[in-house]
Amino acid sequence: MPLRLDELARLVGGRVTNAAAAPTVITGAASISEAQEGEITFFGNARYLSALRSTKASCVLVPEGFAEEIPTSLATIEVANPSLAFSQVLEQFAPAPICHRAGIHPSAIIDSEAEVDPSASIAANAVIEAGAKVGAGSIIGAGCYIGHNARIGEQCHLHPNVTVYDRTVIGDRVIVHGGTTIGSDGFGFEMNQGRHVKIPQIGIVQIDNDVEVGANVVIDRARFGRTWIGEGTKIDNLVQIAHNVVIGKHSLIISQTGISGSARIGNYVTLAGQVGVVGHIEVGDQAIVAAKTGISKSIAGKQVYWGTPAVPLREEKERLAFINRIPKLWEKVKRLEALVEKLAGKTGE
Amino acid sequence: MPLRLDELARLVGGRVTNAAAAPTVITGAASISEAQEGEITFFGNARYLSALRSTKASCVLVPEGFAEEIPTSLATIEVANPSLAFSQVLEQFAPAPICHRAGIHPSAIIDSEAEVDPSASIAANAVIEAGAKVGAGSIIGAGCYIGHNARIGEQCHLHPNVTVYDRTVIGDRVIVHGGTTIGSDGFGFEMNQGRHVKIPQIGIVQIDNDVEVGANVVIDRARFGRTWIGEGTKIDNLVQIAHNVVIGKHSLIISQTGISGSARIGNYVTLAGQVGVVGHIEVGDQAIVAAKTGISKSIAGKQVYWGTPAVPLREEKERLAFINRIPKLWEKVKRLEALVEKLAGKTGE
Amino acid sequence: MPLRLDELARLVGGRVTNAAAAPTVITGAASISEAQEGEITFFGNARYLSALRSTKASCVLVPEGFAEEIPTSLATIEVANPSLAFSQVLEQFAPAPICHRAGIHPSAIIDSEAEVDPSASIAANAVIEAGAKVGAGSIIGAGCYIGHNARIGEQCHLHPNVTVYDRTVIGDRVIVHGGTTIGSDGFGFEMNQGRHVKIPQIGIVQIDNDVEVGANVVIDRARFGRTWIGEGTKIDNLVQIAHNVVIGKHSLIISQTGISGSARIGNYVTLAGQVGVVGHIEVGDQAIVAAKTGISKSIAGKQVYWGTPAVPLREEKERLAFINRIPKLWEKVKRLEALVEKLAGKTGE
Repeated sequence: MPLRLDELARLVGGRVTNAAAAPTVITGAASISEAQEGEITFFGNARYLSALRSTKASCVLVPEGFAEEIPTSLATIEVANPSLAFSQVLEQFAPAPICHRAGIHPSAIIDSEAEVDPSASIAANAVIEAGAKVGAGSIIGAGCYIGHNARIGEQCHLHPNVTVYDRTVIGDRVIVHGGTTIGSDGFGFEMNQGRHVKIPQIGIVQIDNDVEVGANVVIDRARFGRTWIGEGTKIDNLVQIAHNVVIGKHSLIISQTGISGSARIGNYVTLAGQVGVVGHIEVGDQAIVAAKTGISKSIAGKQVYWGTPAVPLREEKERLAFINRIPKLWEKVKRLEALVEKLAGKTGE
Repeated sequence: MPLRLDELARLVGGRVTNAAAAPTVITGAASISEAQEGEITFFGNARYLSALRSTKASCVLVPEGFAEEIPTSLATIEVANPSLAFSQVLEQFAPAPICHRAGIHPSAIIDSEAEVDPSASIAANAVIEAGAKVGAGSIIGAGCYIGHNARIGEQCHLHPNVTVYDRTVIGDRVIVHGGTTIGSDGFGFEMNQGRHVKIPQIGIVQIDNDVEVGANVVIDRARFGRTWIGEGTKIDNLVQIAHNVVIGKHSLIISQTGISGSARIGNYVTLAGQVGVVGHIEVGDQAIVAAKTGISKSIAGKQVYWGTPAVPLREEKERLAFINRIPKLWEKVKRLEALVEKLAGKTGE
Repeated sequence: MPLRLDELARLVGGRVTNAAAAPTVITGAASISEAQEGEITFFGNARYLSALRSTKASCVLVPEGFAEEIPTSLATIEVANPSLAFSQVLEQFAPAPICHRAGIHPSAIIDSEAEVDPSASIAANAVIEAGAKVGAGSIIGAGCYIGHNARIGEQCHLHPNVTVYDRTVIGDRVIVHGGTTIGSDGFGFEMNQGRHVKIPQIGIVQIDNDVEVGANVVIDRARFGRTWIGEGTKIDNLVQIAHNVVIGKHSLIISQTGISGSARIGNYVTLAGQVGVVGHIEVGDQAIVAAKTGISKSIAGKQVYWGTPAVPLREEKERLAFINRIPKLWEKVKRLEALVEKLAGKTGE
């Protein structure tokens, strides 16, 4: 529904600082490059300044004290955090959320020994095995599989086609996106007479409250005990988490990262995209690991790391700088050689 | 069905150049190493020359002007493009294509407010939600999920167990392979009092005509606006495409590549396997990026890139050559040290 | 069920070497850090020695000749292989295995022309197409799709939501984990007038006996002939195997590795996590490739490789050592420069 500039400003706790030539009613929200006349956008990253100067938007959320020169036709609303404020605005223009009615779709297959809270919503073709429990208000998407004795807490949302193996324990308010597999066997074999013999994987996966797991992720069950994802941790798409990994609370594991068996990741850790972590090591609390880094031994917390093998970011940058200056070093050595040769001639060599 | 050499030559617009000792009827097609007597193969890559000399095939498609010495029992057919010609031959020996009958399988769950063209084929256990549309001639595989208000164009083929979230827009003649998830939430959080608070992801995914998406791919919906895959672009298996990414037309995104949020990939770009692209940058038209490259800032088009951080291929090769010559540089410096020491002695140091 | 120390020792063929202060009955098994009083654990890796000294476990499996100082309250059982012995112990304390009853769940959709052995177990919502065969004792999980004319051997276990395309051939005792896609089209296109034209992919995937395939893996069908996974090979989660790849027997392909088209991997090869292999090359028998390595040309067997491009491990380690000593080389050169300048002064330059 359309909103006036002053209504928007009040909504985000901001201040209209330039409204002279702007329309008084805003009808939608979009990015700087996609916004059209009558729409609001936001400016939160200096690299988009030139885009801002040519945007077709009619209003922009800017940081407090914003003083860049922009078209006079573009109204500004100053706020503490433009990105956060934009999220609030988006909710006003968002489509109505999808309603997942409580109850079990007639096509879902619920074992008579499963326990589904009456307020939960079980979608078409979901399968829930004996001994499994689904808590109050949880949504189990179409085609999901909940294995024997698995437990899904309250207010969870499993999107379609998620596979949850037996005995997995999932807390409250956990979101899992489509195509993800939780509880598959860890990759463990012993060589015996030239053949890989499977090591039984009889542990479980435990996912604590407020975790979000992306799409097509895999979290393997423990060989014994548990693979454990701590409260509030967020896992992006296509991440691999091997058996017996422990991730602490409120960490971010970005897309396509792989964590090998029995590694322990601390609290408030960030592993950026395509990071690899070898098995049986520790990553300290609040460590930040840059994309594509290969972590081959335990690293302390509260630092930024990069490279393969991983070193503190500053070291890796120095290393790269030194590499880039090798040609210069060659030149120096060649000059020296010439000079020394000349000197040697003079001294009778 | 068996074909005579001359029939095969006519089929591919080629010329039989050595048929003396060969059988007159060909009964199948296979690779150089797997082909058996009576079968045809093709030679399109010089590295397979020794394999060609020992193949059991009876006939081989070769480039025009082919003059290598090969067994006299091996008939040759000269063509402009042996690989392309082989595809034409393969069609003759291919098994009958699978027929997907128009209509809705009785086990499929189609919401009464969904709109499915009568010529579309909806397989067993597919789920199509309210407001979704499936166009003429499209095939929706077994166990696929088509979310609320999603739109699938005409002549599309979604293979089994694909998950399409609500409001996704897919054009015509789009192919999506099994296990892929389209429209999952972007990975966006704001830290608030020590917890990651989810940023609403209310945009969509738009996939234009003639795109092919591999198996177990993930394409996240936009935070707002759209994540957009341009016409004719082909995406390989296990690729990650984050929220608000825009990929142009006719690009190739090879397996296990990850593209971070809001990155813009141009037209006719090739990103080889396991490439990583950071967020908010641009990759220019016709750029070619080698496998495993990490792209950390915007790069211009029409060049080949390699390395982490990505640089033009030639630079990365030079960098590697310089690294490999460091031992030699050490030797030079040691020789110089010895010489200078000697000189210093002579001059009374 | 609880077991006495001597019963446990007999079970694993070991010897109780310190039982003075320990409880006589063991009630469970867990890792060194998670074990509680009354539980047994194992010690197989020297890095866990300090953890062992503070474990709450009551008994520990140790290697023969173990002589470290540990709490006297901790009973020890000496065995040849503590890890293997622990697996045997775990089976005693493991939950009862899930029973998959023979027969077809009423919700499964089996084509009248499919052939399912009466001893096989077909779970809820599985779909089996015309011409497909499922052998004796095999388990097809919920939501699995078995395409036309695909063949699943005996005693296989496909976990839920696996997609098997048409004509795939799977041997006996093969395990496939959830969300995996087998037989999807290879990524092959020919550029024609500015558009990528699909190259037909009419080959198959063949998986031999005793292979295990992880979760959310993709194995593409061959362009022609077959993509072939040899007997006893084990594939971890999220691995990509492109068209016409051949993997030998008893190899290990660790998580997130990608193997490009027509590459040939030998027998007893190990590719660690996130390795990339370019197309059309060979990896020799018993090669071991370290994590994140990029293999850009054929490599011989029986060696360890690392780096991008891959080189023998020793070379890559030397290379890294030389890189890390560049700063020292700069210092040497600067000292030389100063010295030579001084000498030049003395000799009248």
